[in-house]
Amino acid sequence: MTVSKKVFRSGPYADLIAQGVKVGDTLYLSGQVGMDEAGNTPESMAEQVTLAYANIRAVLAEFGADFDNIVDETFLVTSVEETHENLEAIYTARAEAYGGIPEVTQTLIGVAGLLLPELKLEIKCIAHL
Amino acid sequence: MTVSKKVFRSGPYADLIAQGVKVGDTLYLSGQVGMDEAGNTPESMAEQVTLAYANIRAVLAEFGADFDNIVDETFLVTSVEETHENLEAIYTARAEAYGGIPEVTQTLIGVAGLLLPELKLEIKCIAHL
Amino acid sequence: MTVSKKVFRSGPYADLIAQGVKVGDTLYLSGQVGMDEAGNTPESMAEQVTLAYANIRAVLAEFGADFDNIVDETFLVTSVEETHENLEAIYTARAEAYGGIPEVTQTLIGVAGLLLPELKLEIKCIAHL
Repeated sequence: MTVSKKVFRSGPYADLIAQGVKVGDTLYLSGQVGMDEAGNTPESMAEQVTLAYANIRAVLAEFGADFDNIVDETFLVTSVEETHENLEAIYTARAEAYGGIPEVTQTLIGVAGLLLPELKLEIKCIAHL
Repeated sequence: MTVSKKVFRSGPYADLIAQGVKVGDTLYLSGQVGMDEAGNTPESMAEQVTLAYANIRAVLAEFGADFDNIVDETFLVTSVEETHENLEAIYTARAEAYGGIPEVTQTLIGVAGLLLPELKLEIKCIAHL
Repeated sequence: MTVSKKVFRSGPYADLIAQGVKVGDTLYLSGQVGMDEAGNTPESMAEQVTLAYANIRAVLAEFGADFDNIVDETFLVTSVEETHENLEAIYTARAEAYGGIPEVTQTLIGVAGLLLPELKLEIKCIAHL
């Protein structure tokens, strides 16, 4: 059975995974990380949050969407302890990305690892248009 | 692009995350844990399961939904071993919450950590109305 | 509030979890693993990937769906290191399952554990019909 998708690919793994897939009114995003286009990752969690949301914004924009469209976030962190130590900076960076209080569910999970060792977090979003 | 959401907030992190967001017919819930309104967490996994589902029930109720509406569960546990040791008690508590055999997909994941050290599990649900 | 679901159950945990639940146009699948019907799990990650996708295919088929219908994957691995060491074999096995480049978002997560110790990965999919 065929289904009509809109697909956005980008970055070094463009042949393996899509960064965004829209079907019906639902837009799935691959987990986004705090890495810039040159492959650089800042050390601080708050800066990684800012950069991950910038990458999320770029994917959303490909579908004519923005942060208002996000409905659900899975927030993956490699250290819950470091997350607690930086909680205010992380959520300030997040509020700046959203431009206010997000109308979004969030589930925070401490993971054993992410794709690259310098990554401290990854944010997986679902959006609706 | 604007999207029409219904949002429910509650608890100590109400300014940061929503506990439930409904868009169209889909209701996303933030991961719910075995903590009561006073902030107390029982030690046993089965009791945490019971309490987490009570919290899920409360979020569902805000949207006029109940357990029949849940379609997908991600069941996050901090110890797969302890989960196996308590498997019957955990699934009995779950069946009691659902009032029978759940018509729900479930993915069980051993995580490296949850938001607070006393939490042994977190349950992230998607529901449809 | 009642919701109309189509539910598919199978395997040793059929009384506890559904392998697939369809509601509206959305099909949720429980995380699938590299275990055959006799309960055997191959050691290599690539073979586990092949088998997990065969199990995904079987669930999809119950709903008249196939790999074209998958929109989102959460790819859970117990070792990010072993994933890197086997990256080409893993993604070759995946491309063979999909019959080409998947039009699918993917989030790779290193987990602390899966249900059984011999499992090196689990793949959780959402499909649309």
